[in-house]
Amino acid sequence: MTGRVTDPDRLSQAAKAAGAADLDALLVTPGPDLRWLTGYDALPLERLTALVVDASGAPFLVAPRLEVPAVMASPAGGLGIEVLGWEETEDPYSLIASRLPAVRRVGVADRMWAEQLMRFRAAMPGAEQSLAGAALRDLRVRKSPAEVDALRRAGQAIDRVHRRMAQFLQPGRTEREAGAEIARAILDEGHVRVDFVIVGSGPNGASPHHEVSDRVLEPGDPVVVDIGGTTAEGYCSDCTRMYCLGEPETDFRTYFLVLLEAQQAACAQAGPGVSAESVDAAARAVIAEAGYGGAFIHRTGHGIGVESHEDPYIVAGNETLLEPGMAFSIEPGIYQPGRHGARIEDIVVVTGDGIERLNVTDRDLVVLEG
Amino acid sequence: MTGRVTDPDRLSQAAKAAGAADLDALLVTPGPDLRWLTGYDALPLERLTALVVDASGAPFLVAPRLEVPAVMASPAGGLGIEVLGWEETEDPYSLIASRLPAVRRVGVADRMWAEQLMRFRAAMPGAEQSLAGAALRDLRVRKSPAEVDALRRAGQAIDRVHRRMAQFLQPGRTEREAGAEIARAILDEGHVRVDFVIVGSGPNGASPHHEVSDRVLEPGDPVVVDIGGTTAEGYCSDCTRMYCLGEPETDFRTYFLVLLEAQQAACAQAGPGVSAESVDAAARAVIAEAGYGGAFIHRTGHGIGVESHEDPYIVAGNETLLEPGMAFSIEPGIYQPGRHGARIEDIVVVTGDGIERLNVTDRDLVVLEG
Repeated sequence: MTGRVTDPDRLSQAAKAAGAADLDALLVTPGPDLRWLTGYDALPLERLTALVVDASGAPFLVAPRLEVPAVMASPAGGLGIEVLGWEETEDPYSLIASRLPAVRRVGVADRMWAEQLMRFRAAMPGAEQSLAGAALRDLRVRKSPAEVDALRRAGQAIDRVHRRMAQFLQPGRTEREAGAEIARAILDEGHVRVDFVIVGSGPNGASPHHEVSDRVLEPGDPVVVDIGGTTAEGYCSDCTRMYCLGEPETDFRTYFLVLLEAQQAACAQAGPGVSAESVDAAARAVIAEAGYGGAFIHRTGHGIGVESHEDPYIVAGNETLLEPGMAFSIEPGIYQPGRHGARIEDIVVVTGDGIERLNVTDRDLVVLEG
Repeated sequence: MTGRVTDPDRLSQAAKAAGAADLDALLVTPGPDLRWLTGYDALPLERLTALVVDASGAPFLVAPRLEVPAVMASPAGGLGIEVLGWEETEDPYSLIASRLPAVRRVGVADRMWAEQLMRFRAAMPGAEQSLAGAALRDLRVRKSPAEVDALRRAGQAIDRVHRRMAQFLQPGRTEREAGAEIARAILDEGHVRVDFVIVGSGPNGASPHHEVSDRVLEPGDPVVVDIGGTTAEGYCSDCTRMYCLGEPETDFRTYFLVLLEAQQAACAQAGPGVSAESVDAAARAVIAEAGYGGAFIHRTGHGIGVESHEDPYIVAGNETLLEPGMAFSIEPGIYQPGRHGARIEDIVVVTGDGIERLNVTDRDLVVLEG
């Protein structure tokens, strides 16, 4: 079992970044920021758990007393920070407020729940709230070599599932039945959590965020398989490949080849110093040129790390210049409502002179026995 | 496949409740409130999906264009409400604001993310935000007969997993290995999602929210197994039983019997017109009387429905009077750090004259071959 990839320096980096963003403290409730900062994957329950990153003092973690042993058993227990347990009838918001008497501006985790945000506001009426992401985004967006290694292993794990797809996609099975087996394979091949399983057969392939349904797979169906999970190291995988149960219709083959070229064009465009939106534009140009512009109804990609979707987003209007260590998906799609659809997706990481693709199985249409 | 349990009347009930709470509109992002109101179990991703419940107008749902087919394929597609798709480069917050020009007070879903809450605030600077839960809690806390049926079926599903526990808990296996098989059984026995799997063997049983570890199960170990999932109907299960791999030590048996009596005392106390805190007190009195008061370090229970943990909480200070249809756990525990721990948990629903237990497997210590 490989342990979670963490780095104790992240806490001091976050404190510095908070100060630079003119925030006196960050309040980090369970979610991707907490996982990234401490390695603690807290259950997202109603009792407050919060890491406090003080820009000018020591960080500390507040957790329900009954979860303190779970904190200490996690990588957070090895960080040497103070862990304060609160009892069922105590108010953890007041507890935190009492430790931060002088704060004027706090950053709340971007995914903090509204009910927590409002309780912090009531407990710290003098503190202006803004988003902690302003300070943390810049730290998380460029992956360290250890993080890239973890993403590479996640990519290999999901590639192993795609290589077994002939086992799962068979005419006569429902998408739901195939999806359940794929979910098991995601766990068996090296993930500890299944994040999503999309099996979009025939017309369901035209719904990009379709998950599974009771539709029975039929001979001739193109099938979009977009799957991802989280590894024990705490990093996410996400990869889409196209399958067909027997030979596809001619027009599907035609636009599939356009899509393959578009995905390649975006990968060729991506690299250090290039804008995120230009990568989107590269894919879009190929698809539009071939007459399918209106059928590519989503952005080209999203960043990935301890979250499935994070910065940088590969979308028109995002002028962010890509830098080495940034990791994201390149996944153009073409959708024909009522008929079928196609998407091809790799996770890539920016290197010193281009990108490395972390998913390497064949991107061509995989024709299975129909 | 049983479909999701929903009720189109919930939307009009919510509009009425919003008005009664002096809220002009509710903004409901993905999560339990959205599932309860519409049956739509949206992926919790960064693109905004929001149901708008207008206290004095028609409700509508805003979703990324690429997810509109998924909305329409869900029970939300059958509600006859307007569904507005937004394009990748549009601003859905402004779109919603433009449809609600006159609102003064909005209720945001209790679990809305901070980043969404702040973007709504920027888009609707004249609207004061408070929690939608103030309006929705009262609707969700008393389960309808159809909801109780769904919870009963969820209880039966998790009971089937507990009945198979001898297959999973065997000396020489790690908690993680046993947990992986239990997770599969949770799916096989009638859930579509595994919400949590706690296998607390030996000393890990003293950590109430321990999940699994690489600890190897040993002969003589008491094992806390606390498991739950969500069914296709959208309702949650949650049940804890105690196992021992061979005969336990005498002192474990002693406090286990105290715990069994405490759980029974709390069940006997629960019923219509009785306060939530009195149910907690009933369990606590038995445990304190036997000298284990300091070892029962959490509240007695939590409500359950479309969420694993929701109102009503069975905790000191909660004077809520129980009413027919309220469903919650009764799960006292006794924990001996460094040695072992025990918890017994049933989901119960308040009836006209008492409670019905929705988990019915034997609550006594189950001694497995050690």
